Amino acid sequence: MSAPPSSWIRNAWYVAATPDELTDKPLGRQICGEPMAFFRDAAGQAHAVEDFCPHRGARLSLGFLRDGHLVCGYHGLAMGCDGRAVGMPSQNVERFPRIRAFPVVERHGFIWVWPGDAEAAQGTEPPRLAWAEDPNWAYGGGFFHVRSDYRLMIDNLMDLTHETYVHAGSIGQKEIDEAPVETHLDGGEVVTSRRMTGIHAPPFWRMALRGAGLDENALVDRWQICRFSPPGHVMIEVGVALAGHGGYDAPAALKASSIVVDFMTPETETSHWYFWGMARGFAPDDEALTASIRDGQRGIFSEDLAVLEAQQANLLRHPDRGLLKLNIDAGGVHSRRIIERAVAAEQIATRERRPG
Amino acid sequence: MSAPPSSWIRNAWYVAATPDELTDKPLGRQICGEPMAFFRDAAGQAHAVEDFCPHRGARLSLGFLRDGHLVCGYHGLAMGCDGRAVGMPSQNVERFPRIRAFPVVERHGFIWVWPGDAEAAQGTEPPRLAWAEDPNWAYGGGFFHVRSDYRLMIDNLMDLTHETYVHAGSIGQKEIDEAPVETHLDGGEVVTSRRMTGIHAPPFWRMALRGAGLDENALVDRWQICRFSPPGHVMIEVGVALAGHGGYDAPAALKASSIVVDFMTPETETSHWYFWGMARGFAPDDEALTASIRDGQRGIFSEDLAVLEAQQANLLRHPDRGLLKLNIDAGGVHSRRIIERAVAAEQIATRERRPG
Amino acid sequence: MSAPPSSWIRNAWYVAATPDELTDKPLGRQICGEPMAFFRDAAGQAHAVEDFCPHRGARLSLGFLRDGHLVCGYHGLAMGCDGRAVGMPSQNVERFPRIRAFPVVERHGFIWVWPGDAEAAQGTEPPRLAWAEDPNWAYGGGFFHVRSDYRLMIDNLMDLTHETYVHAGSIGQKEIDEAPVETHLDGGEVVTSRRMTGIHAPPFWRMALRGAGLDENALVDRWQICRFSPPGHVMIEVGVALAGHGGYDAPAALKASSIVVDFMTPETETSHWYFWGMARGFAPDDEALTASIRDGQRGIFSEDLAVLEAQQANLLRHPDRGLLKLNIDAGGVHSRRIIERAVAAEQIATRERRPG
Repeated sequence: MSAPPSSWIRNAWYVAATPDELTDKPLGRQICGEPMAFFRDAAGQAHAVEDFCPHRGARLSLGFLRDGHLVCGYHGLAMGCDGRAVGMPSQNVERFPRIRAFPVVERHGFIWVWPGDAEAAQGTEPPRLAWAEDPNWAYGGGFFHVRSDYRLMIDNLMDLTHETYVHAGSIGQKEIDEAPVETHLDGGEVVTSRRMTGIHAPPFWRMALRGAGLDENALVDRWQICRFSPPGHVMIEVGVALAGHGGYDAPAALKASSIVVDFMTPETETSHWYFWGMARGFAPDDEALTASIRDGQRGIFSEDLAVLEAQQANLLRHPDRGLLKLNIDAGGVHSRRIIERAVAAEQIATRERRPG
Repeated sequence: MSAPPSSWIRNAWYVAATPDELTDKPLGRQICGEPMAFFRDAAGQAHAVEDFCPHRGARLSLGFLRDGHLVCGYHGLAMGCDGRAVGMPSQNVERFPRIRAFPVVERHGFIWVWPGDAEAAQGTEPPRLAWAEDPNWAYGGGFFHVRSDYRLMIDNLMDLTHETYVHAGSIGQKEIDEAPVETHLDGGEVVTSRRMTGIHAPPFWRMALRGAGLDENALVDRWQICRFSPPGHVMIEVGVALAGHGGYDAPAALKASSIVVDFMTPETETSHWYFWGMARGFAPDDEALTASIRDGQRGIFSEDLAVLEAQQANLLRHPDRGLLKLNIDAGGVHSRRIIERAVAAEQIATRERRPG
Repeated sequence: MSAPPSSWIRNAWYVAATPDELTDKPLGRQICGEPMAFFRDAAGQAHAVEDFCPHRGARLSLGFLRDGHLVCGYHGLAMGCDGRAVGMPSQNVERFPRIRAFPVVERHGFIWVWPGDAEAAQGTEPPRLAWAEDPNWAYGGGFFHVRSDYRLMIDNLMDLTHETYVHAGSIGQKEIDEAPVETHLDGGEVVTSRRMTGIHAPPFWRMALRGAGLDENALVDRWQICRFSPPGHVMIEVGVALAGHGGYDAPAALKASSIVVDFMTPETETSHWYFWGMARGFAPDDEALTASIRDGQRGIFSEDLAVLEAQQANLLRHPDRGLLKLNIDAGGVHSRRIIERAVAAEQIATRERRPG
């Protein structure tokens, strides 16, 4: 096990995969610096262990599943979900070294993993996502592998000014960066929001207005309320209402709204898994609409990738160059501060547990 | 010349290439950390020199052959097989620095090279391969570049348990890892063997039984006798006999047998050239059978590559994690010990030769 | 800003791009270790600034042009040609940190940049290229990215012996490396030349003879006069004249001649941009001939790339191995010496400017 990393919280639930990724084969994926082998047991329950066979170091995720165990594809060691070998042909595995097992739960349409100390996970559970439990809501999404620090994506999402530039052809519009931005702390979360009144809807929202049975050409009030919560989640309430009816607080029949869902899961210090999607409170059974929105988001969010990966390369090149922290950057700045404090607290706790 | 490496024997004959690779053009290949340029002289004899032109450092293997010399493709320096420049337009090459020449012999259908001290090669020759000199035997083979320490391939071949898992669709079968394995030292070699009695032949051996005119559905006795010899060779006697006729010692008419030929030649500390093939004592003139077996082996052995390359990456990530040394691993463990002792002896000899 | 590099002159004009590369989009290119964003202002004038947005470190060259400014594609910061931010939505940019701007001029069909201290560029200008100002001359060329130290290309061009080997099928011929080579210093330049008399023209020059209306089968006198000037330019006067009429000094009607134009611009210590072309004093309006020569040069010069990139890899592997400095190498040796002296002088000047 390597030294505690400095840029992510270890003791927390991260989205590791989507349920459809765990089929009748194991899945190898590195989360927070830990190569993990994910698999389902005979009852379909998801598990994760180190992706390292205690026999000869083969990758367990290249193996196969048998009777609910993960069988190494090299010499047949069968690994249980607790990191203990449960069998191997002609061998007594009782004294084989144990490998790490990581707490895993499947909830709200995601596979969640806890990369830190397993004991610390006891009694905790992944965040509740109200829309995931509500039959009046629908969700569609996907994920990307991004070669940048996951915090650059948090910065990105906590400052939607970039939509005007990066997403000029879809959700961006000039009014975004002209609208004042407001940031505040809400418990252990960061909220940054923008409201625009009496504007024309950009292409993406015109489609949403049509989908909600409203006039796509009408003037609208638009809002963006970004909420960061640790370890790396950003939920963005977004929507438009026919102008002059209260905006965010307008009656449901006069608005189209949804939640942009973003889970950033570190892979290494300079790469992450970006799980993105949209939850919407209208037309939940319209699967064609779900597919259409997902395709739209995939196209829009892929525009961020080139920008962030080039930014990451630039920052690695100039590690000591200070960046500006403008008012529009406050969301990201506060989010990073919350992460930093939690990481520091974990490191102090780790040191205290070690014999001196 | 770099410091003596720690993981391979320098003063030994390694397979460097197959004869058909040395045509009317030179061949560049790194062996035991040394970039070499191989070429044939006017009489067709194979040679190897450093792949570094003493004039300006160009790669000699990018040049061409003329009058039995290797001519640098940059400015025309002609290199002789002893590492001395033999000519260059308008230049007197007598005092040009000499580059290293490596002892090379062509024997038994392979080009062999001695990457260590040339004087130490005098009076030695590559191992005798009896089947290569016997007209009643046929050989077919090929080679792979593998991104792993060559010793991981030796481990692999000295523990055929893996066939049950890695090669489940061809030569693997459940009975292999259920059969007891026996390992012993035989002079400077390691022998590890398994015998299975009264089993059904797996697909590869069914084909061999057919090829030998025997009933592919009959019960058979099967054997695998792996023999490691330094610096990195593993010969495996394999075969099946109709059950109850003595197995390995059964009359020739009642069995199909062959030798799996494996030469592992280090390229770097974490990569090697893997020359593989099969020598068989039946139907030596059946070229279609030779091609069929070669194609089969190529498919089977390529299954090992992904496993070994992932294992290598895992081991680099966890350099201090001890691996298990089970009874099935004894063949590899003893083989590595032989290599380690030989390497240590070479290093002591090198230090003693140095003044001071 | 990194420490002064040791292998290139900083305070000098380098070719950075061709004018057609600067269109309505910015261009990102690293020159002498400095990532630069090139762009044209509203009047079409070329500029270069650091490729690093002072807001969050995004690459400015991924942005777009608006009103003569370079607008960052992430959050809309508008950068002026002097490295000062000129605007950003809802922000006061007056106190934003300035980034470096590099002196740029467009002249003689090239975009030139000065990667060193901007003040030192004042009053200087790129070298005059007489042929570029003469309507009786035509130019055609292109460029390559080469993974080698730019000085290996200078060596290459200052010793045309290599043509016999690398370009055997086009401009190379046996007589080149049989002809004596003469090298001398001419002010701050190095001149190395070869003259061949009464020879048959090689394929490229047969084409040129035809193009000039001369007998391609006649015996010719041939010359190659290579002239290096710092920081990394090599102009080569080349030509053939009908034999016995004075060679280089023969009447214009009896010869075909041209100038091989080579600008080497470092990217990193082990890579460079190679701008190559040919200026000719005949048939200046024959665009088909220009295209034909350019295609021929592209093919010929691409043959050098594999040689130089392999040479670079060999030299990195053997950093302490001395290379030969033969008479044919004198051109490169003297050119490197001029560069080394200029680099040393720059470093002394830099140290003296620093408070101490």
